Amino acid sequence: METKITRMLGIEHPIVQGGMQWVSYAELAAAVSNAGGLGIITALTQPSPKALVNEIARVRSMTDKPFGVNLTILPTLKPIPYDDYRQAIIDSGVKIVETAGSNPGGHIAKLKEAGITILHKCTTVPHALTAQELGADIISIDGFECAGHVGEEDIPNFILIPTAISRLRIPVIASGGMVDERSLVGALALGAEGINMGTRFMCTKEAPIHDRVKEAIVAQSERDTCVILRSLRNSSRVARNQVAEAVLELERKGLGIQDIGPVVSGAKGRRVYEEGDINAGIWTVGLAQALINDIPSCQALISRIVQGAEDIITKRLDAICSSSTLVESTL
Amino acid sequence: METKITRMLGIEHPIVQGGMQWVSYAELAAAVSNAGGLGIITALTQPSPKALVNEIARVRSMTDKPFGVNLTILPTLKPIPYDDYRQAIIDSGVKIVETAGSNPGGHIAKLKEAGITILHKCTTVPHALTAQELGADIISIDGFECAGHVGEEDIPNFILIPTAISRLRIPVIASGGMVDERSLVGALALGAEGINMGTRFMCTKEAPIHDRVKEAIVAQSERDTCVILRSLRNSSRVARNQVAEAVLELERKGLGIQDIGPVVSGAKGRRVYEEGDINAGIWTVGLAQALINDIPSCQALISRIVQGAEDIITKRLDAICSSSTLVESTL
Repeated sequence: METKITRMLGIEHPIVQGGMQWVSYAELAAAVSNAGGLGIITALTQPSPKALVNEIARVRSMTDKPFGVNLTILPTLKPIPYDDYRQAIIDSGVKIVETAGSNPGGHIAKLKEAGITILHKCTTVPHALTAQELGADIISIDGFECAGHVGEEDIPNFILIPTAISRLRIPVIASGGMVDERSLVGALALGAEGINMGTRFMCTKEAPIHDRVKEAIVAQSERDTCVILRSLRNSSRVARNQVAEAVLELERKGLGIQDIGPVVSGAKGRRVYEEGDINAGIWTVGLAQALINDIPSCQALISRIVQGAEDIITKRLDAICSSSTLVESTL
Repeated sequence: METKITRMLGIEHPIVQGGMQWVSYAELAAAVSNAGGLGIITALTQPSPKALVNEIARVRSMTDKPFGVNLTILPTLKPIPYDDYRQAIIDSGVKIVETAGSNPGGHIAKLKEAGITILHKCTTVPHALTAQELGADIISIDGFECAGHVGEEDIPNFILIPTAISRLRIPVIASGGMVDERSLVGALALGAEGINMGTRFMCTKEAPIHDRVKEAIVAQSERDTCVILRSLRNSSRVARNQVAEAVLELERKGLGIQDIGPVVSGAKGRRVYEEGDINAGIWTVGLAQALINDIPSCQALISRIVQGAEDIITKRLDAICSSSTLVESTL
């Protein structure tokens, strides 16, 4: 399939693997890129800018196809050397960066100076417009369906995608709730030039997370996520487990970050992804899990989605159209 | 366009006009049916079962095409003679009924005995499965994008539509956030057999509501709705105005129905729709308003959506597919 973003990114299929903290290591990104999509590693999953340089080299050792690096700017308790991570990306000759989070302006400017193509991920149209003005090349618009930071506006993709497209000049990738051939065609119909999938790629053979996490995603339904931290205006969609319920209870009581913070930071997702104890901490997952029933290779997954999407278009949708032509011609 | 639901309902295009309290009178329903969709009047907008009989006759005086009657069962302060409304529908020879709300079982059984085709509208897959077992013929699945009663699960249509289809035997109509040719093709891609539009049909020449309400919908964006009454587990998406904000403030204070009830019931939507004073009361509207920019006739609207949908399929989507075939053939 060829769209504006396959041409801009030099990839075969309009499918991007979202940057996911503690998940998007070289193994996953390379597998996605080798399958014709765009694999992305996450800068801050690496403990230092130097480690990121090594991780970029590891991707290159596994694929010669285009790949990207995610750089997410979020408020954190301990300071993070964002400028050094950014410089590591530039010095490594990376060609595609996915930015996300607050105040990406300075980073986007420096990355653009280095000739890098920028996908900026955000959850609202005003943020997308700002990123466009800052020089972003593509917007990954992230609907309320997504995992992790959902924003505070709760706009689902049936509304968010066409609204974003109608107000932006640059191409849009649909992110959040994207999971299979049906969502790919749905997103293309709404005007997106491709899809970004996170949760779906967590459930692949190559995703370097514990099998019990993948099995949990397969087992969980559309009712097994919840949105925590709304009271702190840092709303995040996570797996609905006992830790998340405890956080929701603190929020219902009207408690602040001094009480909620330790519960969240003491139980973050890395341990879950590594040990597979899905009740031990807070881990992000999207509503897409409702439609995930297996753990294929990235190659099998992407092939199936692309073939399935072509079937939906050339069989199901074309038939719906030609039947109406038939009706008209017999009038 | 021909799908399972156009055949089941005997209509030309897979577009249903949702039953809307204080909006879905004969004028609107007849205009939609005459344009090849399915128009629906709302039983409880009529003050009595006898008035409903008259309203059904008014629809028949304006169209000879199929139309439906909505019967919504909701908890209310004063008792409503639901059985008498239902009998009025049956006695009038209506062929299609849209049911909604809680405990529709007895009503669905009686309507089915009378040979009526049932569309049941609901917001969750478990409720859809129950309605299917009760004898419903079609499910209108109502995503979090919708106006009015959104339910308590907050599942948007990119997830809800394919999830519902995968678990149901009967056909599904996508409802909530459906507004134009893009959403129609998006819904068909996800496996729906058609769309239900409410907010979009409020903004038509024939909708019997005040012009100022229509103009407000055109002006409002995706950020101008809010979900009230979550604290009472009666969540409803309404226009974000001063009355809705007042209700939200009462909910934030933890107040109950004895305090919230009078604010809501003293300011219901009928007055808004009739007088056009959009700040005077609570009135329902969906996120679809973000994508509504004009007030066409129902005929112009439906023609444009169907033609536009065919263009998306046969031009945009087919081109994306054939470009990939081209790439493959040159390998």
